[in-house]
Amino acid sequence: MSEQYVEEGDRRREIIEAALRVFSERGFGGATIKEIAREAGIRSPALIYWYFKDKRALFQEVLGAKVPVVRAVADLARVMDLPPEEALTKLGRAYFAFERMDARVLRLVIGEAIRRPEVAEAFVRAGPGRVLEFLKRYLERQIELGRLRPHDVRSGARMFVGMLIPQLAGKLFFPAMVEDGLTDEEHLRNAVETFLRGLAPES
Amino acid sequence: MSEQYVEEGDRRREIIEAALRVFSERGFGGATIKEIAREAGIRSPALIYWYFKDKRALFQEVLGAKVPVVRAVADLARVMDLPPEEALTKLGRAYFAFERMDARVLRLVIGEAIRRPEVAEAFVRAGPGRVLEFLKRYLERQIELGRLRPHDVRSGARMFVGMLIPQLAGKLFFPAMVEDGLTDEEHLRNAVETFLRGLAPES
Repeated sequence: MSEQYVEEGDRRREIIEAALRVFSERGFGGATIKEIAREAGIRSPALIYWYFKDKRALFQEVLGAKVPVVRAVADLARVMDLPPEEALTKLGRAYFAFERMDARVLRLVIGEAIRRPEVAEAFVRAGPGRVLEFLKRYLERQIELGRLRPHDVRSGARMFVGMLIPQLAGKLFFPAMVEDGLTDEEHLRNAVETFLRGLAPES
Repeated sequence: MSEQYVEEGDRRREIIEAALRVFSERGFGGATIKEIAREAGIRSPALIYWYFKDKRALFQEVLGAKVPVVRAVADLARVMDLPPEEALTKLGRAYFAFERMDARVLRLVIGEAIRRPEVAEAFVRAGPGRVLEFLKRYLERQIELGRLRPHDVRSGARMFVGMLIPQLAGKLFFPAMVEDGLTDEEHLRNAVETFLRGLAPES
């Protein structure tokens, strides 16, 4: 199929797949639009700019498309009114649903992000920052609905995401941290229960 | 002062300081006992082995001496019977008390650990693993004392440490994650309160 007959949506997805492969190998700093174009089988890098403003916007789309928890919060409206137990369990499952490929991207990007401030910012805005912002809004809504006690949602969001981090980090990078055998589902159930008990409305 | 008159404790501290500098620059994988000896002004690397079994043991001592939260849990007996609010606040404060130098070591070591399994293991056993193991024992003790409800302490330990991670990671590596202005002390107070409410004994 020649280039001009590729549908726009397909082309966009192809670019994202190609970008994922290039980011996985080169990291955020090392990847270039030129190389991503080559990987996607596109003759001119200019075409990429037609779909994505810059490398950073493309990176954000890659995480949005490939990291389940970012994908989950991208669709805010659908979970905003779910009861906390259901919404947080859903979010937590998405959080633990990293694939091997995502771990590779994450490994590179985190390694880079902790050394280079501009990568750190791109990473936060594309990934953890979006999850935290979603959670703040979600928790605020739950307080309004009287399902959670009034509390500082900046802390609430950090707490819930954070509770899951040692388990996820253990699974992805630090097996010695999870050798006590606790499973993702067990931990998620315990975390959701403790978090919601801790923030239950005064009775 | 010539080498043979240096007191053993001083020598040990000097080696740890030198090792910190070398680990900060080279990471765990890149550092060699030879270079650490040179940095410490010691003629023979063999002397280092008199104090520390191997590079890994030395690394563990460096984190133990230099990372406040690891230092805090090294002294288990003293906090084991403190009431949870006090003990967890103490632990949390130590957690947030990273110095610039520690951030540099951490940056390098984490970057390395997520790429190389043997560094990951050394890192976990020297740092986060010790904190988690301490917390499990501490939480078990509190359950025995009737101060906390029975729960899976593997989860409890991950939850409490985890709750603080986004704030600490923001402070050390990802400023965009903490630009909402929440302070360490505010977050710690909220986290301790929510955690303890969530695990309060049935009344």
